[in-house]
Amino acid sequence: MFECNEPCLFTIFGSTGDLSYKKIFPALFHLHASHRLPKCFFIIAIGRKKYLKNSFLEQLKPFIAKNELFTEEKWISFSHIIDYFQLDFNNEIDYLHFYDYINELDAAYKTLGNRIFYFAVSPNFFEIISLNLNNYNLISSNNGFHRVVFEKPFGKDLKTAQKFNKVLQTYFSENQIYRIDHYLGKEMIRNILVLRFTNRLFEEIWCKNGIEKVHIKILETIGIENRGEYYDNTGALRDMVQNHLLQMLALVAMDPPAKFDTNSIKDKKVNVLKHLKLYEGNLISPNIILGQYDNYKETPGVRKDSLTETYAFVPCEIDSARWRGVPFILETGKSLDQKKAEIEIYFKPSSSNYLLEHQEIKQNKLVIRIQPSEGINLEMNAKKPGIEFDIDTVNMEYCHSCNSLSRSSDAYEKLIVDLINGDSTRFTRWDEIEFAWSFIDQLTDKYSLNKDNLKLYKSNSRGPKNDANF
Amino acid sequence: MFECNEPCLFTIFGSTGDLSYKKIFPALFHLHASHRLPKCFFIIAIGRKKYLKNSFLEQLKPFIAKNELFTEEKWISFSHIIDYFQLDFNNEIDYLHFYDYINELDAAYKTLGNRIFYFAVSPNFFEIISLNLNNYNLISSNNGFHRVVFEKPFGKDLKTAQKFNKVLQTYFSENQIYRIDHYLGKEMIRNILVLRFTNRLFEEIWCKNGIEKVHIKILETIGIENRGEYYDNTGALRDMVQNHLLQMLALVAMDPPAKFDTNSIKDKKVNVLKHLKLYEGNLISPNIILGQYDNYKETPGVRKDSLTETYAFVPCEIDSARWRGVPFILETGKSLDQKKAEIEIYFKPSSSNYLLEHQEIKQNKLVIRIQPSEGINLEMNAKKPGIEFDIDTVNMEYCHSCNSLSRSSDAYEKLIVDLINGDSTRFTRWDEIEFAWSFIDQLTDKYSLNKDNLKLYKSNSRGPKNDANF
Repeated sequence: MFECNEPCLFTIFGSTGDLSYKKIFPALFHLHASHRLPKCFFIIAIGRKKYLKNSFLEQLKPFIAKNELFTEEKWISFSHIIDYFQLDFNNEIDYLHFYDYINELDAAYKTLGNRIFYFAVSPNFFEIISLNLNNYNLISSNNGFHRVVFEKPFGKDLKTAQKFNKVLQTYFSENQIYRIDHYLGKEMIRNILVLRFTNRLFEEIWCKNGIEKVHIKILETIGIENRGEYYDNTGALRDMVQNHLLQMLALVAMDPPAKFDTNSIKDKKVNVLKHLKLYEGNLISPNIILGQYDNYKETPGVRKDSLTETYAFVPCEIDSARWRGVPFILETGKSLDQKKAEIEIYFKPSSSNYLLEHQEIKQNKLVIRIQPSEGINLEMNAKKPGIEFDIDTVNMEYCHSCNSLSRSSDAYEKLIVDLINGDSTRFTRWDEIEFAWSFIDQLTDKYSLNKDNLKLYKSNSRGPKNDANF
Repeated sequence: MFECNEPCLFTIFGSTGDLSYKKIFPALFHLHASHRLPKCFFIIAIGRKKYLKNSFLEQLKPFIAKNELFTEEKWISFSHIIDYFQLDFNNEIDYLHFYDYINELDAAYKTLGNRIFYFAVSPNFFEIISLNLNNYNLISSNNGFHRVVFEKPFGKDLKTAQKFNKVLQTYFSENQIYRIDHYLGKEMIRNILVLRFTNRLFEEIWCKNGIEKVHIKILETIGIENRGEYYDNTGALRDMVQNHLLQMLALVAMDPPAKFDTNSIKDKKVNVLKHLKLYEGNLISPNIILGQYDNYKETPGVRKDSLTETYAFVPCEIDSARWRGVPFILETGKSLDQKKAEIEIYFKPSSSNYLLEHQEIKQNKLVIRIQPSEGINLEMNAKKPGIEFDIDTVNMEYCHSCNSLSRSSDAYEKLIVDLINGDSTRFTRWDEIEFAWSFIDQLTDKYSLNKDNLKLYKSNSRGPKNDANF
């Protein structure tokens, strides 16, 4: 059984925001209720609003009440390890008070100076909070562990990301910085390396000799909802491809690491991102497809002449001995007819297919299903039952989320456990971000400012028409 | 849909025996009831007993009534294409009458001289019937197709098989001879080549680089029942290993044939049998285990001091570039605690297992289930659901017999269709038999006459104690 031995104070900036209510607090509650938090652990909910602790808890309670482990008793127990602290991010006096407050708590809860600061706020506040944490000695590298956690977006292109990173580096060391990509906390994403590196079945075949193409998709039915202004300045390439999709690609394509530790794994992931380019194989044009759903421009906050893509289809290629020539297709979009995140691995046809030349024989396909259902499908060929000698594609299935013995835990729960344990494997290292932006910048420079490249598509459809021969 | 265009007369010698009642006639009925027999088709049931056609049909009916397609109407229709003919195998006059009779039928049913003779009799009668078929011009190579079908045993060692084959060759040409091994008609045995040659997933790995060992087993719960005398002169090596198990081994291990036709496939199978030897790897002795269940000697017909094996565990090896060093374990026995026929393919451990050194990681395993259930299991590793990073073995399953759309047909049905179509792929060619006997003779010479090699085992147990490190 997992034991979390690290005592610490867990501070959340932006504790009254959506992310905190919907993800961070429920994850903390679930960990608390299942006894997975350290014994000496306390949560400081920071917000700009003036709240008494109890009014804050009243606001929070409905979100926690949805949790499957919720009972009144557990809620009361959870509320004992939370306090609300009002702080205006721009007000230096507030940080002074916070300094006294956190040191008192540290002594009271025996947290040995260990501190986690979770930045669940708009990126506009990242710098000012970092600056003040530093100025007011709230963070150091001597006394216990001090970790800062950032939600995406981490910049909006290579330049802004580099600038922001430089700021962070003046205040924190790289090993104190945890950049969250919550996709990396998802069960089946964590499963990719296990599938690849513990199954001999995939060992020889996981390269250009055995794999014909890889299709990584995150399709969503929701539109951009109330995020009009943010999204219109971002678009699918920056909002989804730069982080989630490229992270998935890196895990699927990376070479086996020397060891199963954070930096060995990240080195191999970076090596994939470093060699990424647009696919140059023999495709019917266009290589890359950007789309926008038909009523996108009616969303509040979106420009009436917006050229922002809400859909992207990006065939890329990894220029390495292992992968040269194999298309990796990244696809994502809003307002589509299906909600689905999955990775499809298409294996090459069998070299012996000539033996059964009059049969239509499908290639083997491995599907790693990430959401809504979690699991693995493997499509293989077998003889159809009966006297005839017909080939049939059979679907071998493993349903991860159906396993009733152990609950498939939420991405945030796992990432918080990692945070407390100081395991940054499932967080993003700076050079991963850097190479990902550098690839995305190439695409946005080349494609996203040209009106001709943007194809309109109907809401609730499969996306723009696609003539590429995939 | 399959169309069987070959008209013919189908003669069964030994039509009142167990095999005819339980297997051949039900298969013919099922084919008839599902319209898979040629339109011009007639069955001659030959026996030594004096029967009127109707008394014979009365005897037969209860066996047919068990068939899932049975209706009175279909039974009546089936009985219209059967006649009973009394013939004493040693009486030459009877063959003379048979000659007239069969020629009349041939004209009446427009079967164009096409004849199949099924030898469902004791091997003692094989020669005399063959001789008389020949002497009385019942068979020829000019007028239509003439095929003779033999059930095992085909000899009791290489010498007797060769002798018998020489006899057959004086009367028939090799392409007229169909040696039945009914295992080759089983769905999942027919599936082996499809699985191997249409799934790229297995292509690179199906050799000594990827496969650690192969375990082929036919385990039975029944004892030898009323076959005491026959079995005591035969034993498990001759009764099961020489035919079913070696045929399965040949299909699992053969190289891809040049074409998917009978002789190309058989050439590759023979190539496996030709290079077969006992496994010489690093095993705890004994290599080969022979056993006898505890109350075997009480069976009527069995010698009181019998050394006949009712169980055999034979690790062998194929001395070829593809397989050198990989143990293929053949195992079969009577009176065991389970009834199961299956092929287990154990893949080598993943080369990346070192990455997760504190985990117990099982090797990948493919199981081809032949009976009682038919299907494929593939054991793979995945992350266990939950926060911990534990590895779990997951079972991907395909149930062939569960496919409700098409019935998994009986081995005899398929083999009879092959017979009528003249497709001898799933019958045994002489050189397959020859090399199989030559391997079995080595074993019997070396092991089965030495009392020390025979281990007693309890009925309804897993068989004799096995110290081999498999």
